[in-house]
Amino acid sequence: MFGVTILGNNSALPAYDRHPTAQIITLHDNIFLIDCGEGTQMQMSKYKIRRSKINHIFISHLHGDHYFGLVGLITSMGLLGREADLHVYAPALLKEILDLQFKAAATKLPFSLQFHTLEKEGILIDGKRFTVECFSTQHRIECWGFIFREKKHLRKIWKEKVIEYNIPAAYYTNLKNGDDYILKDGTVIKNDWVTISNSNPRSYAFGADTLYDELLAEKVKNVSMLYHETTYLKDMNDKADARFHSTTEQAAQIAHKANAKKLLIGHFSSKYEFIDEFLNETKAIFENSDSAIEGVTYRIS
Amino acid sequence: MFGVTILGNNSALPAYDRHPTAQIITLHDNIFLIDCGEGTQMQMSKYKIRRSKINHIFISHLHGDHYFGLVGLITSMGLLGREADLHVYAPALLKEILDLQFKAAATKLPFSLQFHTLEKEGILIDGKRFTVECFSTQHRIECWGFIFREKKHLRKIWKEKVIEYNIPAAYYTNLKNGDDYILKDGTVIKNDWVTISNSNPRSYAFGADTLYDELLAEKVKNVSMLYHETTYLKDMNDKADARFHSTTEQAAQIAHKANAKKLLIGHFSSKYEFIDEFLNETKAIFENSDSAIEGVTYRIS
Repeated sequence: MFGVTILGNNSALPAYDRHPTAQIITLHDNIFLIDCGEGTQMQMSKYKIRRSKINHIFISHLHGDHYFGLVGLITSMGLLGREADLHVYAPALLKEILDLQFKAAATKLPFSLQFHTLEKEGILIDGKRFTVECFSTQHRIECWGFIFREKKHLRKIWKEKVIEYNIPAAYYTNLKNGDDYILKDGTVIKNDWVTISNSNPRSYAFGADTLYDELLAEKVKNVSMLYHETTYLKDMNDKADARFHSTTEQAAQIAHKANAKKLLIGHFSSKYEFIDEFLNETKAIFENSDSAIEGVTYRIS
Repeated sequence: MFGVTILGNNSALPAYDRHPTAQIITLHDNIFLIDCGEGTQMQMSKYKIRRSKINHIFISHLHGDHYFGLVGLITSMGLLGREADLHVYAPALLKEILDLQFKAAATKLPFSLQFHTLEKEGILIDGKRFTVECFSTQHRIECWGFIFREKKHLRKIWKEKVIEYNIPAAYYTNLKNGDDYILKDGTVIKNDWVTISNSNPRSYAFGADTLYDELLAEKVKNVSMLYHETTYLKDMNDKADARFHSTTEQAAQIAHKANAKKLLIGHFSSKYEFIDEFLNETKAIFENSDSAIEGVTYRIS
């Protein structure tokens, strides 16, 4: 399973029962949290997300609608007796904010909170089967996007052929990793004679808050799914620019330039009571789009 | 109108759709906020409380379930273009926390945030028709309760009598304030011959988080309504003591010792899915009790 579950799809002001940004990434056996607006822990209860399973939290930037719920979530994890390390990846100042709040409450967490300051673009987690990397976006303050990538899948053993060439089972791991096999007489059995390529690795890019930025399209090139903010409808171009946000049309253009397979839009301004028009405008330019709706899980394929 | 509207009735962990502490006090034409746990601004939307009408916010202490929603509420007030001064009364460290969060977001509020550090017991607001005062409570960290008191009502003019004694209308204000009237021949017309006493001034005490403390009963003596926390049922005496919280039985005893007219209980531990038993246990000792239920307004009389 690789998917993203939306816990909040609204921009700065909570409104119309839409909540500030928070997303759960499910990737194989892991669940990750991206951003943590106020009320995220309540949204987790509502949508049956197990807090205890989250070991890594990524905070894009320090506007409140992206992190005001974090200290509450961490405090609750402590009250529930969590013991496993918790990793938080965020701009530097967040550590000071958390430390000050724990000091004020005389809080002693029963687990280790490991803070990783976001400083430069690159790999944050290099797992066995996936990586998580960060990239900077252009917003009013320091802001980071994140990409979750499956590693290239191992090749599959082609049973009939390995028997035909009489390759010992002890060498299968090498075959899966793409190695050729060399017979005692020096004959080379090419890897692709005896293995089958597996499906392409999938990837998800969270584009954070950003103005229209063609450089971002380069950074998220060829992802399976791009989440791009659409704070405003297309007629609000000027306002979007001034506030370092994007419109539907701009998000669709970036998805197109990035050659993303699918586009997910969200971070809707609270000036809009209804959000249907966002998807209409986006689809007019980039057909394979969807709207981030709270409680819904979007499969990444 | 004098009443308290409950926005959150739960203790530290949000659970069973119960929220952390927040109460709205409506007193004549004013609305005040006491405590502001995470999600308070959403609860305000749900229960149609107008954020813009709040000019004074009182924070009892810096455990997160009593203030994590404050920075979000203040930020939203700013985004909505508030211009009126906002007064916050709280322990000193809250100012540092707010300032750091505003700095991180490069937030410039469009209104003046006036911070009042709670330092000693006494009057915080001396209004024309009411006062607000604070008193310290015994909790794990510095903690404050608040009392809202109507000022003594002016006496009412007894029409037939003022005509009978021929007292000029220009002197009525003095009469309302309790002065006697002296005729030219030196005869004293006693105030209570010509005026009628008005109903007693009402008062509401918010007892904050506290362990069982008989001194608290003295501080809130004779209030019309006492809100006293009941984190636990009566069988959890030891746990309550250890955590500096109170049980149903203890709250009822304090209400009795304080000679409170009515007791309102809340701050229920998330270990209880159902809270009916809290009121049963409380009423067994102090009959005129009620449970704080979210969305309900309790009239103070």
